[in-house]
Amino acid sequence: MNEFELIRRLTRSLPANAAVVTGAGDDCAVLDLGVPDQLILFKTDAVVEGFHFTRETPPEKIGRKALARCLSDIAAMAGTPTAALVTLGLPETFDPDFVARIYAGLNALAEQHQVAVVGGETTTNPGGILISIALLGLVGRGKQILRGGARAGDAIFVTGELGGSLAGKHLDFAPRLAEARWLAEHFHLHAMLDVSDGLAGDLRHILEAGQVGAEILQSALPVSRAAKLRANPPGSPGSSHKSAALAALTDGEDFELLFTVASRDAVKLLDAWRKKFPELKLSCIGKIVAGEGILLRNRTGTHRFAASGYEHFRGRGQ
Amino acid sequence: MNEFELIRRLTRSLPANAAVVTGAGDDCAVLDLGVPDQLILFKTDAVVEGFHFTRETPPEKIGRKALARCLSDIAAMAGTPTAALVTLGLPETFDPDFVARIYAGLNALAEQHQVAVVGGETTTNPGGILISIALLGLVGRGKQILRGGARAGDAIFVTGELGGSLAGKHLDFAPRLAEARWLAEHFHLHAMLDVSDGLAGDLRHILEAGQVGAEILQSALPVSRAAKLRANPPGSPGSSHKSAALAALTDGEDFELLFTVASRDAVKLLDAWRKKFPELKLSCIGKIVAGEGILLRNRTGTHRFAASGYEHFRGRGQ
Repeated sequence: MNEFELIRRLTRSLPANAAVVTGAGDDCAVLDLGVPDQLILFKTDAVVEGFHFTRETPPEKIGRKALARCLSDIAAMAGTPTAALVTLGLPETFDPDFVARIYAGLNALAEQHQVAVVGGETTTNPGGILISIALLGLVGRGKQILRGGARAGDAIFVTGELGGSLAGKHLDFAPRLAEARWLAEHFHLHAMLDVSDGLAGDLRHILEAGQVGAEILQSALPVSRAAKLRANPPGSPGSSHKSAALAALTDGEDFELLFTVASRDAVKLLDAWRKKFPELKLSCIGKIVAGEGILLRNRTGTHRFAASGYEHFRGRGQ
Repeated sequence: MNEFELIRRLTRSLPANAAVVTGAGDDCAVLDLGVPDQLILFKTDAVVEGFHFTRETPPEKIGRKALARCLSDIAAMAGTPTAALVTLGLPETFDPDFVARIYAGLNALAEQHQVAVVGGETTTNPGGILISIALLGLVGRGKQILRGGARAGDAIFVTGELGGSLAGKHLDFAPRLAEARWLAEHFHLHAMLDVSDGLAGDLRHILEAGQVGAEILQSALPVSRAAKLRANPPGSPGSSHKSAALAALTDGEDFELLFTVASRDAVKLLDAWRKKFPELKLSCIGKIVAGEGILLRNRTGTHRFAASGYEHFRGRGQ
């Protein structure tokens, strides 16, 4: 049983109450606690030594990343983050300065986004450092963008560039908070999330939630320079052993926005985006279609892109 | 540097914003997000294998305890819990049924208190199981009870019995939610918290926050049967090597309410409590005095009860 199967099992019937607007399964939980015109966004996310960072990672970047991941989830709902709690699991012996530097990185990003850090705790965690962030945010009532609204015919957009995040971006990425709020304010977004597990995997969340499929144009994928560098020459030391396109489709931790709008809005949206955010790429990478799963169009034809992605794609000689 | 010193250092200057009513340092953070008549309570708490439970603990009780500890913090503010997120750190191999049973125990307690479980995540944590709960609650605007309001002359009360929690209560305790709300509704409480680190240690939080001292009457301490059993005969196998009174003062994880009220309210409060909660003990254990620290009165006189508690107390032959 993998993580997704376990989560599916655990979240099948969770306790609910009248405050719940959207429970488990979206980027954030959405709660109605009686704020006029606003709903509450509620999210936790953890980073773990050896998986999301190493002992060699500068501690400021560890703290920054822990908060940035959570901010990205608030962005994916088109919300505004408000207050965070920090849970810090530490080995039995640790350097207090290391911990202070984790907080310094976290606090600097919090200040930048006017997020209050209102406490938390430190606890012993024998296996290594673990940081869990709990984050509260606000979103205009009815303005939250969920994963489940994609419709056949929608254009699919993604911000920034994809793939190769491990080369550095996973520690330095900017949560797309202002961009998401601007999008939700000016356009009727049907579905949105942040790309954390790789484009193909996260696109599937949108497809499953909307009971639709997608056709992706490989040449339209905004492949990052890092993905290209790591892919070329294949097999050389430091190579990702993935083609650049496969890296863009399956590498994790991009933390870009993936969203769909009606195709009639696509050109207007691209034009307005380029005026508003001239320095951040926005790419239309394909369209939502009836059916299920992902079809990938490239110069050799149209191929079904399998759930696991990697092996199948390589098997086709990409 | 111990945990308390580290936390003091880390929380010296945290990012804040206009939503913060009470930041780090109380049982919960208190936020004003614009709910008319209500403030938001926000808390996280983690339990870790080997510290708060073992592999032999029934998993239902692990899940129950993880949530109950957090509920107790909402109780300590006289609030009502609303929604929880669950972060589950798991070793690289685990039994899915074990995890399902953790959730079963947690969900049952959540249902009992009408708390919605709105998601969370599972993540790999190589050192063992870690469960962090993030909890939101509500409290009437201005009705939250903080740690900092104790005044010289106040009577000091504690609910239930103290000491020996490790014998079983630490897995089965009932968060005092209804009791705390009733107290705050009917009496002017000056300071309140939940006893998690031992009576003496937590009383010191109230004393430091209020810049006052306390005089505790040893004979008034509600010593639990478990503390008495473990203390007697001293030195025998299974003994805690503490006197029962010392256990009541310094054992952790009692999760009882500790609060102060003006002395003129003390008798009325005790009378009303006994009618309302006839099955739960409420004890007046002493009074707030000018000065600092804890004075302990027993049949040998009045002694200063030192910060570390244990060694000093034993040194006095108690």
